Amino acid sequence: MMNLVAPTELLLTVDILSVVVFAVSGALTASRKSLDVVGFMWLAVLTGVGGGTVRDLLLDVPVFWMVAPHHIVACLVTAVAVHFSAHLVESRYRLLLWFDALGLALVTVAGTAKGLDNGTGAVVAVVMGVITGTVGGIVRDLVGNEPSVILRREIYVTASGLGACTYVALAALALPSLAAGAAGVAVTFAVRGLAITYNWSMPAYRRRDGRKVEEIEGLRK
Amino acid sequence: MMNLVAPTELLLTVDILSVVVFAVSGALTASRKSLDVVGFMWLAVLTGVGGGTVRDLLLDVPVFWMVAPHHIVACLVTAVAVHFSAHLVESRYRLLLWFDALGLALVTVAGTAKGLDNGTGAVVAVVMGVITGTVGGIVRDLVGNEPSVILRREIYVTASGLGACTYVALAALALPSLAAGAAGVAVTFAVRGLAITYNWSMPAYRRRDGRKVEEIEGLRK
Amino acid sequence: MMNLVAPTELLLTVDILSVVVFAVSGALTASRKSLDVVGFMWLAVLTGVGGGTVRDLLLDVPVFWMVAPHHIVACLVTAVAVHFSAHLVESRYRLLLWFDALGLALVTVAGTAKGLDNGTGAVVAVVMGVITGTVGGIVRDLVGNEPSVILRREIYVTASGLGACTYVALAALALPSLAAGAAGVAVTFAVRGLAITYNWSMPAYRRRDGRKVEEIEGLRK
Repeated sequence: MMNLVAPTELLLTVDILSVVVFAVSGALTASRKSLDVVGFMWLAVLTGVGGGTVRDLLLDVPVFWMVAPHHIVACLVTAVAVHFSAHLVESRYRLLLWFDALGLALVTVAGTAKGLDNGTGAVVAVVMGVITGTVGGIVRDLVGNEPSVILRREIYVTASGLGACTYVALAALALPSLAAGAAGVAVTFAVRGLAITYNWSMPAYRRRDGRKVEEIEGLRK
Repeated sequence: MMNLVAPTELLLTVDILSVVVFAVSGALTASRKSLDVVGFMWLAVLTGVGGGTVRDLLLDVPVFWMVAPHHIVACLVTAVAVHFSAHLVESRYRLLLWFDALGLALVTVAGTAKGLDNGTGAVVAVVMGVITGTVGGIVRDLVGNEPSVILRREIYVTASGLGACTYVALAALALPSLAAGAAGVAVTFAVRGLAITYNWSMPAYRRRDGRKVEEIEGLRK
Repeated sequence: MMNLVAPTELLLTVDILSVVVFAVSGALTASRKSLDVVGFMWLAVLTGVGGGTVRDLLLDVPVFWMVAPHHIVACLVTAVAVHFSAHLVESRYRLLLWFDALGLALVTVAGTAKGLDNGTGAVVAVVMGVITGTVGGIVRDLVGNEPSVILRREIYVTASGLGACTYVALAALALPSLAAGAAGVAVTFAVRGLAITYNWSMPAYRRRDGRKVEEIEGLRK
């Protein structure tokens, strides 16, 4: 039974866990770039709370980490910990990918639910979910000067979008939000997990007329 | 007579049209980078609604696409359409440049007017207009990893700024806002159109003392 | 005695001065990239008011430069002035570094104080101070396509963080805010000044297991 744990405490734990998982991925970008500990902190914070921050600004509700400092402290502690142990973390990279998939799933559904709770329509709620799940990583890649998750063809944003749609569809069918949430988390995690396992990626845009993109580029200048 | 169309409907149509034009330019960036359909969607949405989003956050009014989903849906549909027909769109690139000029003109004036309507002064209203017209493209270039419109010397931001100034000046002279708006649109479109036709660009900063920038760089390290 | 100058006027002067110093550093990035005058304006505005803008959005208070146009006008005038005299400005680059250190110190403390005044806790107030001091420069580097201040190991963000901590600690000890502010400014300025003078930088992250980062990269693909 869920009653074994008070729902609010469970939510807070899940919340902090997701932020930490994202913060680790930011800190690992810092380690790849050989940054100092302050660089680790910046990237951990940006990645950890970036998506939720943009969501809250768009929803015009108080930004979640401004109210209580837990999330920021969790990101900063994560940054310092990774700075002094990145070699251990990196050797468990595949494990991390799976944690990241879990973080993505939790955060996507939480973001979608927050959208609906604040009165957005279905489409906008899905966008809120995807933004919460992916904007942190996009900012991490921009600031860390790495190719953005948008420019890769990994199934990442897609997994987030499918999970968000699942949640919105089930919530519209008046399922209790815990059930809808569990289904949304499961879909995101399953799609992302399959992509990790089988190295799936989305088909790239290919020109239909057989001409190479470079030829067209000439036209465009 | 303008009465042939209800003003609100006209405004909404113009609004959606501008968002679609910008979304197309985002989707074309995605096609140049051979992204998947999700990448097309991200870039279409960022370019289509980015400028207005920043404007609304700064004005502290509800973000326009959060209230009703038309704009987001328009961006997503545009992204999918371009993904499956980019070769057709690209062969009409010059036509698109003109549509983009029209979009820039409409969006600049709409953004400037929204500033004034929300009580900003003249300078800040002009900045709102320029932000609405150009921030979407800046974010598109940042995320798409292309040289930003700021770093090129095209007459684009300039056209937007001149149109915004025109609108503010005429509104200050108490002209009806439809007339001031038409003039602002005309100025932006004309300046941008001349730049497209004659390949105008702004003079680059050139060092006065004849030394090359690279020599100075040495000093700066 | 402080009464020689009305405190509000003093604050506004300090405020504008810091914005101008940051705007100069944005405009110099534009000169390095040989941009046109509009590019100078964009980078001056982004660098000058970027940090405070993000802070105010996060605090959900009116964005400081939307209320009165002084800051924007100061940035635009600075941009034009630097466009026509960058060779003079650059030959005084070292002087500028010191002005920038002063700007960082003032802006950090002002941002931290604004956080506390709006009811944030100590940790979040420090983050507000660091954001106010450094986000403008980060955006400048992103848009200007230069390596971000985060990716360098300069003692810049660190100086800002230490000054913000000083202010928060002394304010918690119930010192009058002018004294706490002076101490915060002094700490930031001193740390940054020492870093400039002795070319200090933070230790980079180094792998503990002796393997090169490139070897690990292989694992990560």
